[in-house]
Amino acid sequence: MAGQFITFEGPDGAGKTSVLEAVVPILREMSSKEIVVTREPGGNPISEKIRQVILDVANTAMDDRTEALLYAAARRQHIVEKIQPALAADQIVICDRFVDSSIAYQGAGRSIGETAVAQMNLFATDGLTPDLTLYLDVPSEVGIARIKQHRQTQYDRLDQEKLAFHQKVRQAYLKLAQAEPKRIQTIDATASFEAVVAQCLAVLKQHYPSLFEE
Amino acid sequence: MAGQFITFEGPDGAGKTSVLEAVVPILREMSSKEIVVTREPGGNPISEKIRQVILDVANTAMDDRTEALLYAAARRQHIVEKIQPALAADQIVICDRFVDSSIAYQGAGRSIGETAVAQMNLFATDGLTPDLTLYLDVPSEVGIARIKQHRQTQYDRLDQEKLAFHQKVRQAYLKLAQAEPKRIQTIDATASFEAVVAQCLAVLKQHYPSLFEE
Repeated sequence: MAGQFITFEGPDGAGKTSVLEAVVPILREMSSKEIVVTREPGGNPISEKIRQVILDVANTAMDDRTEALLYAAARRQHIVEKIQPALAADQIVICDRFVDSSIAYQGAGRSIGETAVAQMNLFATDGLTPDLTLYLDVPSEVGIARIKQHRQTQYDRLDQEKLAFHQKVRQAYLKLAQAEPKRIQTIDATASFEAVVAQCLAVLKQHYPSLFEE
Repeated sequence: MAGQFITFEGPDGAGKTSVLEAVVPILREMSSKEIVVTREPGGNPISEKIRQVILDVANTAMDDRTEALLYAAARRQHIVEKIQPALAADQIVICDRFVDSSIAYQGAGRSIGETAVAQMNLFATDGLTPDLTLYLDVPSEVGIARIKQHRQTQYDRLDQEKLAFHQKVRQAYLKLAQAEPKRIQTIDATASFEAVVAQCLAVLKQHYPSLFEE
């Protein structure tokens, strides 16, 4: 088995990050291969600087397409400096969000257009596609309720507006999963935390049985 | 006549900037319309910050595609904050370099690929194309010799390598001019400065006769 590129995707409140924190140590225990866990901007100075420009609160006038291009620029540098070298060294790269997130959040959520964002990102990835994507799916109401529980706040009018945004994001993810059923494996993330972790491990085992051999 | 978007293009040493400095005051004298002269990053804080990331000398590891995406992001913001509002206000926008420069320098010169750079920039421009482009053409040897004359330096080995780069850039410009003969008007920039300025004015007069009416 050569280096493998695995991404975790999902709307806010799907529990992606917690699930990754539980899955990765188990994988590390089992695999003889080096496992690299990363997320954008990925720790390189150029992507960090780009992220600073995006997050600068003074940049209130930033156009949605400008932002999408900046995310793609940070992604490109992350690929070149971290992901590609790890794959070339035959390692397993697990990335928390990748192009699918941009398609869902910027393409659908912000209404730039999913095809436009996907095509522009092809320039950034130069064709690098995940070998496997675990998509943690939750209905938008469930995802938002989970976030609010975390923050211990009440549901308000702003959340109502957010709901429409999150629904667009989820629909985009579902469309992607339907279009690429081989790459994107959908995990029911409404299940208990333990059940979601077990589902993820089952998918990984099915795709990479050698990882789970004694 | 509605707002018009005019760009000036050409390889280094074509004399583009000096020609613009001579042409614009004459246009301003003649036109009743407001004439906005601009170049990227265009003075807005977001594009200036992006440009700082590109120019940061510490960023020696910057990938060519990362750089191209950053230029496109700065371009997008320049369009949204400066070019589109001026065109909407029925003004004439003259821009020193635009997408054609990216196609020639990054697509051909840096070998990313002209089509890839052109398509990615479509995301940034969202379809905004110059109404008219004045392409100041010089053979690469002439262009480099002019730059060296400016800087009063001798021709050396590095210039030899630069020559190959400049030839790729010029070939890309010539291809663009051939593909879009209506939008891109080629000016022979080996002629005397006065003759080049006169050629530019003649092209502008031909396209916008109303600008030159008493």
